[in-house]
Amino acid sequence: MRKEGSSMSVTVQDVMDGLTLPGGNPSGTVDELLAGHADSVVTGIVAAFMPTLSVIEQAASRGANLIVAHEMLYYAHQGGEQIHAGSRILLEKQQRIDTLGLAVYRCHDYWHHVEPDGITEGLIQALGWESHVRERLSAATILEMPPATLEKIAGHIKARLDTPFLRVMGNPARLCGRIGVFAGFRGGGQTVIPLFESEHLDLVLYGEGFEWETPEYVRDALHLGYNKALIALGHAESEEPGMAFLAERLRAHFPGLPVHYIKEKPLFTIL
Amino acid sequence: MRKEGSSMSVTVQDVMDGLTLPGGNPSGTVDELLAGHADSVVTGIVAAFMPTLSVIEQAASRGANLIVAHEMLYYAHQGGEQIHAGSRILLEKQQRIDTLGLAVYRCHDYWHHVEPDGITEGLIQALGWESHVRERLSAATILEMPPATLEKIAGHIKARLDTPFLRVMGNPARLCGRIGVFAGFRGGGQTVIPLFESEHLDLVLYGEGFEWETPEYVRDALHLGYNKALIALGHAESEEPGMAFLAERLRAHFPGLPVHYIKEKPLFTIL
Repeated sequence: MRKEGSSMSVTVQDVMDGLTLPGGNPSGTVDELLAGHADSVVTGIVAAFMPTLSVIEQAASRGANLIVAHEMLYYAHQGGEQIHAGSRILLEKQQRIDTLGLAVYRCHDYWHHVEPDGITEGLIQALGWESHVRERLSAATILEMPPATLEKIAGHIKARLDTPFLRVMGNPARLCGRIGVFAGFRGGGQTVIPLFESEHLDLVLYGEGFEWETPEYVRDALHLGYNKALIALGHAESEEPGMAFLAERLRAHFPGLPVHYIKEKPLFTIL
Repeated sequence: MRKEGSSMSVTVQDVMDGLTLPGGNPSGTVDELLAGHADSVVTGIVAAFMPTLSVIEQAASRGANLIVAHEMLYYAHQGGEQIHAGSRILLEKQQRIDTLGLAVYRCHDYWHHVEPDGITEGLIQALGWESHVRERLSAATILEMPPATLEKIAGHIKARLDTPFLRVMGNPARLCGRIGVFAGFRGGGQTVIPLFESEHLDLVLYGEGFEWETPEYVRDALHLGYNKALIALGHAESEEPGMAFLAERLRAHFPGLPVHYIKEKPLFTIL
């Protein structure tokens, strides 16, 4: 339902236009309308990291008919609808979206390309680390903070992001002051390893990366006696706060519309 | 040191020849001598998943001068020596290998391409599941076993593989009988999702895969009420047993040589 007193009808196209860079989104962008129609009048917006079936149903139950999601509907960065065309789960998800009459817009590249990167900025804010930022690079934000033990930093991250566990490398008692934050799938060796050394990082916090790259580098570095630590936060955990931050922007931009942020549960539990 | 009584000198080249498919390894293979010289006489072999600095030093301390490793030395599937050319950690690792006079041979493609795939077979054997194998596909081995709860299966895997934790999705109390085993980085959606459905799998056990693919599929499937479960074992954990299995083969093939298998510690701890 649209709020009483909102000034004008906002369409899905209006929201997409508001999530487009001045010169247009980067070429080859994955930002597109994944379901629904551009001319539909928006009754409410849900911002989320991943448009899961649970998020889709929660959106509908809140009366929102537009989901703005960072990631894709069908389990592949691009082309999931074709790749998994025969899947029963995909078919049931498509039917559910159709039945509920929802639009799903993917907002990935826009939000990474605004300056500063909205996804990384949302994570830094959620961690309460804005005042420690030293440098914003394209792949990472470099922080310098009063040294604290790896264990204490991990506890802070878990509490601030409401995440039940972290995968960690390094001595929990070692002090870390220079930290590199790599949101999303930016944990690869080519991205992280040069900055680990050139920025003299004690700790890297990344979303996701190949296990044989950065972690194996950290393992060897630890063996050699270097003070290096790594926290693999999880892809979703590292990018969700950025979508909560986007919800704030959308609220400011479309004051007549209800805008919700929905956080999913962690994918994995530990057994 | 070579054992008393071994019949003839075995060179690094002899071992490499023994780890080559009859028609040669696949084109574009990553199997190559990463350090040392083909004509060196082998004093002992260490088989390991990853030639970490710890493995390298343990090999030297056991008098072995050849490491046969599944993975690479320098933190990239190919070309790590160039990609990370400026890295201090890389340089120190190179120097250590030179000083110790070791040879490192990568045995990746050969062992995946023998039939059945030596890496997957080693994992199945380590889990004691040989009698449950129903079908060996190129990407996965399909098992059918008396249904047990996900929790019980997870406990079995942890005990058999001596791994302290598992990342798991699904209801721990649900029964799983049809299991797909995907060793290494075969956890991607294009590999797993079609088999999840066509093979009616209750549980997929994979080494590593992108978080936004198979796990998000499982999340939606669970939401729809399907009995699906996922265990993300870890890349190393899923391929180490295959290298222990290769050590057995090498022992049989080179009876005069000491052959050791070295298992690394898990990369991550949970905080």
